[in-house]
Amino acid sequence: MRKIAFYGAISLDGYLAESNDSLQWLFDTPTGETTYAAFDQQFDTMVMGRKTYEEAKKLSEGTPFYPEKEVIVFSRKLKQLPEAKVVSEDPVDYLKQLQKQEGKMIWIVGGGNLLKPLIEADLIDEWWIQIAPVLLGEGKRLFEEGDYHQRLELVDTTQMEQLYELHYRKISDKKSTPS
Amino acid sequence: MRKIAFYGAISLDGYLAESNDSLQWLFDTPTGETTYAAFDQQFDTMVMGRKTYEEAKKLSEGTPFYPEKEVIVFSRKLKQLPEAKVVSEDPVDYLKQLQKQEGKMIWIVGGGNLLKPLIEADLIDEWWIQIAPVLLGEGKRLFEEGDYHQRLELVDTTQMEQLYELHYRKISDKKSTPS
Repeated sequence: MRKIAFYGAISLDGYLAESNDSLQWLFDTPTGETTYAAFDQQFDTMVMGRKTYEEAKKLSEGTPFYPEKEVIVFSRKLKQLPEAKVVSEDPVDYLKQLQKQEGKMIWIVGGGNLLKPLIEADLIDEWWIQIAPVLLGEGKRLFEEGDYHQRLELVDTTQMEQLYELHYRKISDKKSTPS
Repeated sequence: MRKIAFYGAISLDGYLAESNDSLQWLFDTPTGETTYAAFDQQFDTMVMGRKTYEEAKKLSEGTPFYPEKEVIVFSRKLKQLPEAKVVSEDPVDYLKQLQKQEGKMIWIVGGGNLLKPLIEADLIDEWWIQIAPVLLGEGKRLFEEGDYHQRLELVDTTQMEQLYELHYRKISDKKSTPS
């Protein structure tokens, strides 16, 4: 079965982006070479919510949008996109089917409201979370409140100058309630 | 001037405690020897909110409560405590005075609602944050929403089995706005 992973950066206080979607705090963080090139080899499918797609598209500045990957955008609002498959189905049901198909890892790009039902359904196998040394105070959280109660396993860590990556893995197929 | 520090553990999703104040998820995290013994040598004063005091007191199970430290509890409700100094003043004003007095480091034990005005006033000089490999889904956040916009400096990190410590320091006396 294909693995489903989250890979992405947050502020020390847990935000994926500021309220206005700005990632300037992340671009201002010195990183040197990152772990992304190695991660890029591991996945062939990218999954994201509509807002994350729109922001990522802006950042791509007119260049082809991940032409070598299958891009899936969950949206009940959009009908179609030139460079992505729009899916209006329930993300949990869809991903459970998708992970049975042949392929490499599936990258959940974001955002927090797409991740929440996936965490609740215990679908995230691996986490690569890069922590930037910034307190934003408000914005869009990686971890929205939800019914999680999961214990993970710390696998390894990577320092990229001021960005620090923690790599976690699901302990088993079963939820473990920590308390 | 004395330094003011936060030292404490959070879940990967940013909680100091579950909503019912349980720390069982932390006690269930294998750590081996921790950095606490070294930190203990650095501070002589502990500062906390009333609820943090009450929970810490329960955990002390009737043994003397940090007899070699000065313990300060911010509360507008409590009048006095046998083992701590109760302060009803504004925490920011009080700590600005306290840090001018002779002494070692001042440890802000928690919780989040005491930390919020201290972060906003840029009073925290050092952070030792231990991240437990657990998603709780809800509880009491270390970082409540606030007017922060601060960039810190990653100083070093320490692995304690499944608990991972990130050590940050304030970059300067001036707030740096990351965006």
